[in-house]
Amino acid sequence: MIKLYYQNCKVGKMDIKVKNLYYLGPEGSYAQSAVKQFVTDLKISAENYIPLNPITRILQTIDADKNSIAVLPIENSIEGIVRETIDNIIRLEDTSVKICAETVIPVCHCLMSKSENKENITHILSHPQALAQCSGYLCKNFPNAVILKTASTSEAADITNQKDGHYAAIAGENASELYGLNILDKGINDEKDNKTRFILLSREKFPVTEDSRTSVFFTVKNEPGSLVQVLNIFQKFNINMFYIESRPSRKKMGEYNFFVNLEGHVSDKNISAALNLAERITNKISVLGSYSVYSKQM
Amino acid sequence: MIKLYYQNCKVGKMDIKVKNLYYLGPEGSYAQSAVKQFVTDLKISAENYIPLNPITRILQTIDADKNSIAVLPIENSIEGIVRETIDNIIRLEDTSVKICAETVIPVCHCLMSKSENKENITHILSHPQALAQCSGYLCKNFPNAVILKTASTSEAADITNQKDGHYAAIAGENASELYGLNILDKGINDEKDNKTRFILLSREKFPVTEDSRTSVFFTVKNEPGSLVQVLNIFQKFNINMFYIESRPSRKKMGEYNFFVNLEGHVSDKNISAALNLAERITNKISVLGSYSVYSKQM
Repeated sequence: MIKLYYQNCKVGKMDIKVKNLYYLGPEGSYAQSAVKQFVTDLKISAENYIPLNPITRILQTIDADKNSIAVLPIENSIEGIVRETIDNIIRLEDTSVKICAETVIPVCHCLMSKSENKENITHILSHPQALAQCSGYLCKNFPNAVILKTASTSEAADITNQKDGHYAAIAGENASELYGLNILDKGINDEKDNKTRFILLSREKFPVTEDSRTSVFFTVKNEPGSLVQVLNIFQKFNINMFYIESRPSRKKMGEYNFFVNLEGHVSDKNISAALNLAERITNKISVLGSYSVYSKQM
Repeated sequence: MIKLYYQNCKVGKMDIKVKNLYYLGPEGSYAQSAVKQFVTDLKISAENYIPLNPITRILQTIDADKNSIAVLPIENSIEGIVRETIDNIIRLEDTSVKICAETVIPVCHCLMSKSENKENITHILSHPQALAQCSGYLCKNFPNAVILKTASTSEAADITNQKDGHYAAIAGENASELYGLNILDKGINDEKDNKTRFILLSREKFPVTEDSRTSVFFTVKNEPGSLVQVLNIFQKFNINMFYIESRPSRKKMGEYNFFVNLEGHVSDKNISAALNLAERITNKISVLGSYSVYSKQM
């Protein structure tokens, strides 16, 4: 169970000290909140906490920097899997880099400004996705405001900090602290149950826990039924499959690779037996990582 | 085979006349190229060709407007399925709106400007995705240019048309014609085999062809193995599954619905038998459409 995992932390077995921790920036991002949560829960410490952009660059950087770990978004409860993360993890040259842990951050968009009064607001800035997620709130409360798009929610807060009190940003609470803005409204996203799952990539060996998930990527022979053959192996060994996604092979339109999440740890007998069997009928199969399922407040 | 399909067109059986054809705008978009291709291949004619944004709004509009059809992107060969299209097709209230046809448009980004000389260019505008797809070309040819992001490739061409010859846009050939710009370089996307598949949504009945694809959406009971049970039904009836994607249920993180593409037409005996059987073990299953696979120059 998950308790075992945190017990391990308490006796110091999970202490990780690295030189560089890379996360999806800029500062004030939801990824930075995920970093804080990992630091607390897993007793991680790094000499340098480095925000980077975009996701592809973070993966290239950790691939080359042996003394580093990275924190990246992998799934949002509304949008689904983060394709840029999946598509690039499978391209890592150093295959000892694995998904070692996950954490979940609630997406709680806030309206923030230098002003303390909503009535002053004439311009609202944010990332297009955050604006879309708050479109109901904006239509209702600011039907006449000028909407401006930015590259990130943190950038919106940064610009708002440089403007007068007619400007407001939509961003996470983190950003309001960083840029010294007043929160005028909290949790303004239209769908309240909006969460993002973040992963920790590392070369460290993490302890096996009972409540584990294994992420696997495979390519099948281009023959009818070859995908179902692989899935049947998982079923034969009573392995529950949470998630499956086809990713374009990028070689030919209509040819796909597959990403799946399985219940259990790669060291479990049934998972390892299934993967050995699956290896025989796939073109390629790789375990991206086995890690404890985050279960706090879920 | 596909020939039958086009034979049908030639004898006029596919003639479709509607009041409104909605497509993903603005004018000059790749979706507009898809509209032109549908018009030629399927003998479609509309009184009004209406560019709309975003995808969600097009689906809401065709849902309400009984005398309309719509053209939308559904898949890109590099990015994968267009989630906004899938997530909203399943929310259509009028279930007589189906995917009736598909076409494929090569993504061929061009550098265009008022200038006829690349050496004049100091500012380059485009949609962030197009800029990313041309990043190799830009690094090599314009390492010092100021890169500006726009809401669409067409908007980039529109703005370039209003500026002097120091500005250039990255957009499709269509946009250069529309805004009277010179093409300075053609096919500048780093991955050359980049294509987008577009669908035609309509309430019309299209003729059955031998080379058909059926798009199906279903939700399974939240029990281990329930997805594989459904996939096994498809396999039992020798139905080839091209594509599968998990989409968040938006109810609880980790709960998914599934979108699959099957080889064959819903009126084929094996497909209809499989769907009848699958209906018994799924919470919901809907056929989004059966349509002829586009096979020209593929």
